[in-house]
Amino acid sequence: MNASWQNTADERLKTILNSLVEHLHDFLRDVEPTLDEWMQGLQFLTATGQKCDDVRQEFILLSDILGVSMLVDAINNRKPQGATESTVLGPFHMVDSPARELGADISLDGNGTPCVVAGQVRSLDGTPLAGALVDVWQANGDGLYDVQQPDKQPALNLRGLFTTDDKGRYWLRSVVPRHYPVPTDGPVGDLLRASQRHAYRPAHIHFIAGAQGHHPVTTHMFLDGSRYLDSDAVFAVKNELIRSIVVINDEARAAEFGVQVPFHLIEFDIVLDPATQQPVELS
Amino acid sequence: MNASWQNTADERLKTILNSLVEHLHDFLRDVEPTLDEWMQGLQFLTATGQKCDDVRQEFILLSDILGVSMLVDAINNRKPQGATESTVLGPFHMVDSPARELGADISLDGNGTPCVVAGQVRSLDGTPLAGALVDVWQANGDGLYDVQQPDKQPALNLRGLFTTDDKGRYWLRSVVPRHYPVPTDGPVGDLLRASQRHAYRPAHIHFIAGAQGHHPVTTHMFLDGSRYLDSDAVFAVKNELIRSIVVINDEARAAEFGVQVPFHLIEFDIVLDPATQQPVELS
Repeated sequence: MNASWQNTADERLKTILNSLVEHLHDFLRDVEPTLDEWMQGLQFLTATGQKCDDVRQEFILLSDILGVSMLVDAINNRKPQGATESTVLGPFHMVDSPARELGADISLDGNGTPCVVAGQVRSLDGTPLAGALVDVWQANGDGLYDVQQPDKQPALNLRGLFTTDDKGRYWLRSVVPRHYPVPTDGPVGDLLRASQRHAYRPAHIHFIAGAQGHHPVTTHMFLDGSRYLDSDAVFAVKNELIRSIVVINDEARAAEFGVQVPFHLIEFDIVLDPATQQPVELS
Repeated sequence: MNASWQNTADERLKTILNSLVEHLHDFLRDVEPTLDEWMQGLQFLTATGQKCDDVRQEFILLSDILGVSMLVDAINNRKPQGATESTVLGPFHMVDSPARELGADISLDGNGTPCVVAGQVRSLDGTPLAGALVDVWQANGDGLYDVQQPDKQPALNLRGLFTTDDKGRYWLRSVVPRHYPVPTDGPVGDLLRASQRHAYRPAHIHFIAGAQGHHPVTTHMFLDGSRYLDSDAVFAVKNELIRSIVVINDEARAAEFGVQVPFHLIEFDIVLDPATQQPVELS
């Protein structure tokens, strides 16, 4: 079989194809599928592809619930001690987040409990990173992203691209995230039901942060006390990424964020590791 | 990870999922894909699913060119010595073949060199199997199946379901098969091009044969002398399935098949192994 890839000009592609065929055949020799099972597998993959559209990526979701996304993340993000850990991208970063001013409210539908999200972007040695980009996206109080509720949510709801100030700080207004199920109306939902697995993810906010001369990080802030922190359907939780939400009564801090007391605050600092050679790539 | 399948009620499904995750993660640890490569892989799978429709099954084609279909065939068809070997179903058995009378011409478009295809269906001990079903389908002189050329070929062109006579014989008129490429206008074609693999299959006719009290067989007759017999894009060739085409000048034989001399004849006998317990399933 592997001789079939011998003329592949791209050496990397050849390596991947050889390994794919080896492991795929090992899997099949291991389970010895019947013809019906083989066909069911192909039909599952077909249905997964056909569920995808501009706002739905069922194969990313499949990768997520098989633990593949977290493994690929671990392979690609061996962060030094002290740098903010990465986690999965997830399937909902499908539109570019709009640039917004610091302090802007990204909750355009007001669905959820208001809160402030704030933090500082620093380099590994503690230096604040001014002009860093912080891309934020999350689900609303129904546990759904804008692209999942095009008739109920304004476009670009709960998405924003922020630039840190001269002290490396970012802050924005949003709503308290809540746990929610991954979409279960497709083949991945069928698989979760067939294996009696729940579909829930603990409450979280997505971030991609990047700064000149540093490796960008794709990560989440997970909310302490959320249900499903110990059984995330996509295996994305890392303890270092869990933060508490606190109620603040300090009027000076309220003024700083342009809100009234009392207010809910989630603080999430982000530490980036310096890239010695690579230019920063923000997606 | 594998703990996630522990509540799967169906033990067989649990076994398959545990093995899938193990081998899939081994593959990923082996090749260590970048995030771009992971995304390219997911996009390839998505495009493969989206290429599928009522008359196109790109995932079967992918399974075929990865040697998966032949492996699944080998796992499921350990035939006793003397029984006709099986080979892949292929992606074009998408419509039921129409029942036709013995001797019928299945070439409705007349595209190709006329020939007679004939043989006997026997049990492993040599007993002729009267009333056996022989399902036949093939491509026309352009190397395309009816479902690939809906505007040029009549529906059900080059498909027929025949019932053997009291001596276990079947015969029909068709056209000489020729080598042809698998469809290359989808993701599988992209993969073949990227790996500098040709897309051709040697000349063949598809068969599924079944009879009361016997295991059905899904197979091909491959034409001796065809190009690509030693490099079938889907790895389906078995030497035992190669047959010659001969020119017949015998008027008695011509009369037997209702044709004029000289005529081209392909003989393909099919030997089925008895099923001791299982009922025959014909698809």
